[in-house]
Amino acid sequence: MAANQPVAIVFDTFGTVVDWRGSLSTELTAFGRARGIEGDWAALVDAWRAAYRPSMQRVRSGELPWMKLDALHRMSLDRLVAEFGIKGLSEADLRHINLGWHRLYGWPDSVPGLTRLKRKFIIGPLSNGNVALLTNMAKFAGLPWDVVFGSDMFRHFKPDPETYLGVAEILDLEPGQVMMAAAHNGDLGSARKCGLMTAFFPRPTEYGPHQKRDYAAEQDWDVVATDIEDLATKLGC
Amino acid sequence: MAANQPVAIVFDTFGTVVDWRGSLSTELTAFGRARGIEGDWAALVDAWRAAYRPSMQRVRSGELPWMKLDALHRMSLDRLVAEFGIKGLSEADLRHINLGWHRLYGWPDSVPGLTRLKRKFIIGPLSNGNVALLTNMAKFAGLPWDVVFGSDMFRHFKPDPETYLGVAEILDLEPGQVMMAAAHNGDLGSARKCGLMTAFFPRPTEYGPHQKRDYAAEQDWDVVATDIEDLATKLGC
Repeated sequence: MAANQPVAIVFDTFGTVVDWRGSLSTELTAFGRARGIEGDWAALVDAWRAAYRPSMQRVRSGELPWMKLDALHRMSLDRLVAEFGIKGLSEADLRHINLGWHRLYGWPDSVPGLTRLKRKFIIGPLSNGNVALLTNMAKFAGLPWDVVFGSDMFRHFKPDPETYLGVAEILDLEPGQVMMAAAHNGDLGSARKCGLMTAFFPRPTEYGPHQKRDYAAEQDWDVVATDIEDLATKLGC
Repeated sequence: MAANQPVAIVFDTFGTVVDWRGSLSTELTAFGRARGIEGDWAALVDAWRAAYRPSMQRVRSGELPWMKLDALHRMSLDRLVAEFGIKGLSEADLRHINLGWHRLYGWPDSVPGLTRLKRKFIIGPLSNGNVALLTNMAKFAGLPWDVVFGSDMFRHFKPDPETYLGVAEILDLEPGQVMMAAAHNGDLGSARKCGLMTAFFPRPTEYGPHQKRDYAAEQDWDVVATDIEDLATKLGC
């Protein structure tokens, strides 16, 4: 069991807790088939996710005003639907597809692992998703969060320090009493620079055949686990 | 079953969901006895609660800068401990007593009623408490919130419209898709002016022998129930 224990654990969400690629590819492929709308939906999902970081950078740089991730997702979707030559989508269809990010499934260990951790720690997402997205996702996937931290509470996206330090401030904790848990070494590096504890577990199928990194811990994170259930075990839950 | 259904229900917390008076009186009386510190702890609790609205008004008027309810509670406590002539409390004691507001018990129907409502609706507190207070209270009392709305997210206290409208904005809902549930007619009147749906149930013992109002609904609220279990029944849960 890890010697030093946090009071709260916040989780990166897309990829770390939920399988965005599998969930969206399955849903959109079924949607296209049911509606008779042709398109390479799986490739669209990969391109949509690839647009994620650049779209947040446009806000960070000041090129775009602050907006929720839902709005950035929609801007990217509108562009990609045209690029992929997908025809026949109504405004209601586009809204429905965009809210697919609210309907992502947890990895098999996510709900049981979080349920164990919740007995001993405050748990919540700390995601670039907005609170509505994260709350709807939790209802959909059964994620038993105690409290929801979305980027719209800070008007900053990770890895801006305002997000990691904002959680500590809101919970009235020292940064060192908060643990960031993620399947992404970069997120943990930024959290550590702010003084947070860190926990890593890999999600080697997050990007499918396109995965290039994050197969293993790249620093001596406070806890390195195989998944969220193993994290619960290593933290004595 | 009520015809028009909300998407989310937010609950006033002190008095509506948790029994602040019974919880704090019991805890502080036991604390005083265990520590051999004399004081009329039950009267202190009533006076502390009486200081609540005036303290928030000092922030609203600009006399005090924005601060979390925890900080306002502490200012009032320091004054009242002197006024009540309670001697021998250390700084650690005062901190512990102040965080008593994080350790309040639900009314008997609160956890079962909320658990039923959670199956069908997004549920959360909308309280003048800060997020840390509300999150710790939920862990202590077992309140199964989906999302936590504290006044520090809005930097406004109820009944400022920024709180009621802030919930709708964060959840990406129209005000009319959000229901405010409270045992206080005044809170519901302010929520209704912002366009929220409203649900009332009385807590006739909230203030003990000092209760003067809120024994019954004073407007035609969208739902009038006897408690949170009855609210769940009336909303078809």
